[in-house]
Amino acid sequence: MRIVIPLFDRFTALDAVGPYEALKFLPDAEIVFVAAEAGAVRDVPRWLAITADATFGEIDACDVLLVPGGPGTRGLLEDENLIGWIRRMHQESTWTTSVCTGSLLLGAAGLLRGLTATTHWGAVDVLESFGAVYTPERVVHQGKLVTAAGVSSGIDMALWLAARIAGRTVAEAIQLAIEYDPQPPFDAGSPAKAPQAAKDLLAKGIR
Amino acid sequence: MRIVIPLFDRFTALDAVGPYEALKFLPDAEIVFVAAEAGAVRDVPRWLAITADATFGEIDACDVLLVPGGPGTRGLLEDENLIGWIRRMHQESTWTTSVCTGSLLLGAAGLLRGLTATTHWGAVDVLESFGAVYTPERVVHQGKLVTAAGVSSGIDMALWLAARIAGRTVAEAIQLAIEYDPQPPFDAGSPAKAPQAAKDLLAKGIR
Repeated sequence: MRIVIPLFDRFTALDAVGPYEALKFLPDAEIVFVAAEAGAVRDVPRWLAITADATFGEIDACDVLLVPGGPGTRGLLEDENLIGWIRRMHQESTWTTSVCTGSLLLGAAGLLRGLTATTHWGAVDVLESFGAVYTPERVVHQGKLVTAAGVSSGIDMALWLAARIAGRTVAEAIQLAIEYDPQPPFDAGSPAKAPQAAKDLLAKGIR
Repeated sequence: MRIVIPLFDRFTALDAVGPYEALKFLPDAEIVFVAAEAGAVRDVPRWLAITADATFGEIDACDVLLVPGGPGTRGLLEDENLIGWIRRMHQESTWTTSVCTGSLLLGAAGLLRGLTATTHWGAVDVLESFGAVYTPERVVHQGKLVTAAGVSSGIDMALWLAARIAGRTVAEAIQLAIEYDPQPPFDAGSPAKAPQAAKDLLAKGIR
């Protein structure tokens, strides 16, 4: 089972690595990071790079497509090299998935028109501009299309997907392996829960 | 504020990337991935590589040391190049932290003797062989030493640390930025909670 994760300049690393760390345990899984060019691909703020081991041209099919998001997505919505590749991967994939603003790339590929989907809470308007109906849920699935909310939600999505692919006990064993028993010290993980002061600070820019 | 994350062959990517994704928002933070040699460092099962931008020799001090774990730790417990470097970093660090079996490396450096600490639930015996007292909590702190439990716990630790460094509102803004509102589809994230069938499968090997 080939799982493919495209990378691009200014991606968000946890969008990709959260689900990667869960899905790598799946029986028969093989995971490939892929990009326009092979080699190191940088995130924002450029302190982290993950190696793409293949180019888009080298990967012509996959079982699971997992598209991460990041600030870089906004400049790629009309990039046919990436968007066209996503569209081709989707034609024969078993599952087409996204984390965070990765769903904007699925939207740009025309895959979400008329469907319910999710994305980072800060990108709802762009998602809806592609004809998707935003749903403020952590993991949204319609047929083979699965979208997850912001950044860390990819872990939840991956466990859901692992259960669909290999059964609940496998997913539970993966959850135990990565000791995913979350205990956030605060309860500010969504706009509905975060204190106004935290929202104001984020809007202004933390750094 | 310089945050340094050492990498080594067969590290676990989420141990490093979970906290990275939170701490990168801290005001004045600069995060550097470092390794014995600069360049791509591979995880298990070698499908992922993160670039080390500096060598141990190039980094002689930091404010926050964050040591990830992974299967590779077991072969590095007597590696003076890494262990001696950790010991030196700890001398002047403000915070010395670990995720998962990264605590074994802190233990090997002699930093946990007589202290309570945590690690991945599967590595308790090795942790205790270094004189630490294992505590089955998600984040354990004693003075400037902070250890986190398995893999995904690094996100919880990073938010705790962000609050200590920059205040609760900053930590809450970060939690909102990464939409960390975890909703695991199952409740199997610790040995105390996981069904026996999942524990048996993991012991046997999922793949």
